[in-house]
Amino acid sequence: MSAPKILPVIMCGGAGTRLWPMSRKARPKQFAALTSDRSLFQETALRVAPPEGFLAPLVIAGEEHAALIAEQLREIGVKPAAIVLEPVARNTAAVAAVAAEWARVNAKGSPVLLLPADHHIGDAAGFRRIVVAAAPMAASGRIVTFGVKPTEPHTGFGYLERGAAIGGDVAAVKAFREKPDAETAAKYVRGGDHLWNAGIFLYDPATMLAEFAAHAPEIGKQAAAALAAAKRDGAVVRLDRAAFEKCPANSVDYAVMEKAGKIAVVSLNAGWSDVGSWSALTGEGDHPAIIAIDAEGCVIRTDGPLVGVVGVSDLVIVATKDAVLVAPKDRAQEVKKIVEELAARGRTDLL
Amino acid sequence: MSAPKILPVIMCGGAGTRLWPMSRKARPKQFAALTSDRSLFQETALRVAPPEGFLAPLVIAGEEHAALIAEQLREIGVKPAAIVLEPVARNTAAVAAVAAEWARVNAKGSPVLLLPADHHIGDAAGFRRIVVAAAPMAASGRIVTFGVKPTEPHTGFGYLERGAAIGGDVAAVKAFREKPDAETAAKYVRGGDHLWNAGIFLYDPATMLAEFAAHAPEIGKQAAAALAAAKRDGAVVRLDRAAFEKCPANSVDYAVMEKAGKIAVVSLNAGWSDVGSWSALTGEGDHPAIIAIDAEGCVIRTDGPLVGVVGVSDLVIVATKDAVLVAPKDRAQEVKKIVEELAARGRTDLL
Repeated sequence: MSAPKILPVIMCGGAGTRLWPMSRKARPKQFAALTSDRSLFQETALRVAPPEGFLAPLVIAGEEHAALIAEQLREIGVKPAAIVLEPVARNTAAVAAVAAEWARVNAKGSPVLLLPADHHIGDAAGFRRIVVAAAPMAASGRIVTFGVKPTEPHTGFGYLERGAAIGGDVAAVKAFREKPDAETAAKYVRGGDHLWNAGIFLYDPATMLAEFAAHAPEIGKQAAAALAAAKRDGAVVRLDRAAFEKCPANSVDYAVMEKAGKIAVVSLNAGWSDVGSWSALTGEGDHPAIIAIDAEGCVIRTDGPLVGVVGVSDLVIVATKDAVLVAPKDRAQEVKKIVEELAARGRTDLL
Repeated sequence: MSAPKILPVIMCGGAGTRLWPMSRKARPKQFAALTSDRSLFQETALRVAPPEGFLAPLVIAGEEHAALIAEQLREIGVKPAAIVLEPVARNTAAVAAVAAEWARVNAKGSPVLLLPADHHIGDAAGFRRIVVAAAPMAASGRIVTFGVKPTEPHTGFGYLERGAAIGGDVAAVKAFREKPDAETAAKYVRGGDHLWNAGIFLYDPATMLAEFAAHAPEIGKQAAAALAAAKRDGAVVRLDRAAFEKCPANSVDYAVMEKAGKIAVVSLNAGWSDVGSWSALTGEGDHPAIIAIDAEGCVIRTDGPLVGVVGVSDLVIVATKDAVLVAPKDRAQEVKKIVEELAARGRTDLL
């Protein structure tokens, strides 16, 4: 018997203001071409759309991005199982529940790979191998998380604390640790038992639905109701507003994972990055619209204007048709201050 | 008897590639808004268009900028004596000769103030006072140059060596010194007898025409012929191509000034800058399209896109609709390398 195919569920929420000016309300970072000619969403869809091992992906997103998603999928020739639209944002727990319910009802209980649309994975083939190898563990009733060996004491990530070894590079999860302070993060990195929580989950729908029933029953119930009463129009599935609005907004980590029983962590060694800010990117770009003379360690991106730089180092330089960002890489997070100032000035056209 | 009014002749030649991306072939720096909401050309025209002391300006420019000049003059409400168009570029000597000939024929021999369109003068009123005070010296048969006390050993300027004092802040010019090397420039600055040659001249037409006759007769002759056979169409005067093409191309400094007899230098203490490169400018700009957070000593300009910067210092950042420049101020001259690379890539649209 061959293993059941995996249903990728791509979560398209998230605003990504730290990636202004390419990330905008109308076109958040996951739909921008940051790491290649394709958007992060397109790269994600292609990563899990190989000839075997995976089913056509389910995409879950906000109403406002429906057309963008359809267009970006069309561009890369990926036909989704469906594009599920949330009438309101209810964080990741509701998405995880909808994904599980969808798989139970429409995909014969296939295992779900829940993954954000805005991550960069350097080694797509390696990623697929790791996920496929973990599928039997999901079939055995475990929720599989993916942990990345920390390369620095990052305070912007949650951490997974490894417990007893299960076999190979897999361990039980002893604890979920929220974003630590710098001191704690340093301790985690020194200790070696903590991994960055990649925010990617592999689970059997029955397992996840049981965990919801046990730890977040209202979310499980309303998510199922929202899907049961959804309206389908071609590839687009609109969740029922009345039911979905009743879903408590919570992250899947808080609502379920931290309380759930059998959780495993698999080492994800495939060049993972959450592309949380410009400093997470690299490269001056061998792009026809970039001329970098004597530039070192810069992140340079453009979606139109030519960018010419001379003699600069360690800067983030991002140009779009209507806005330009320049900041040192180690202060790239502070782009939020610019976004705040834009909001204060009423420049909603640039948010 | 009141002093005769001065005829300002604004020279609009010059490419200004060091001010890319705002300075373009189709719109060189003198027509770009670099120092205020107005272009350098507009600032120049307004500087010499006060209610008294000056006649309506004569503008001398290349054919390709005729429409731009008419439009920019219209915007500021300045009606020129004429816009004289050169069918080919022949450097400043030909322009000085045309200006003198025009003043002789059309302006009753009024003194000519020959000035480039691309300078910035911080103190316009002071500039006018200095020029008007120098007019009697021009009437006495001297060619008046304007010297700026050097603030640094600049190697990009010519220098005027002061000779015997004539009175007040005026001296005879002992010698014109070409752009010096760094060592010589340093010596000039220490010595105190050398001033930057501002490239602005005040002269009676008869004086200048006599100097041309003595030192550059072919230029004087062909310039006069080109003006005599010019075609006038409203405010626009098109110099005769056949005659003007015969004008040897030379700078007024080389062709006439270095050989001329009675030359005086007046100290120009009015915040003069030739705006030769971005580093000559200052200011992060209190511009609605600039958000500068924790920025120090930067030159930031935009003619459209919003520019947001955080935590940068001593950078030149210039944004236009189709191109962005980022460089340290002390390397701003190297923008030429970007322009060369654009030419090599065939991006004439951006030159």
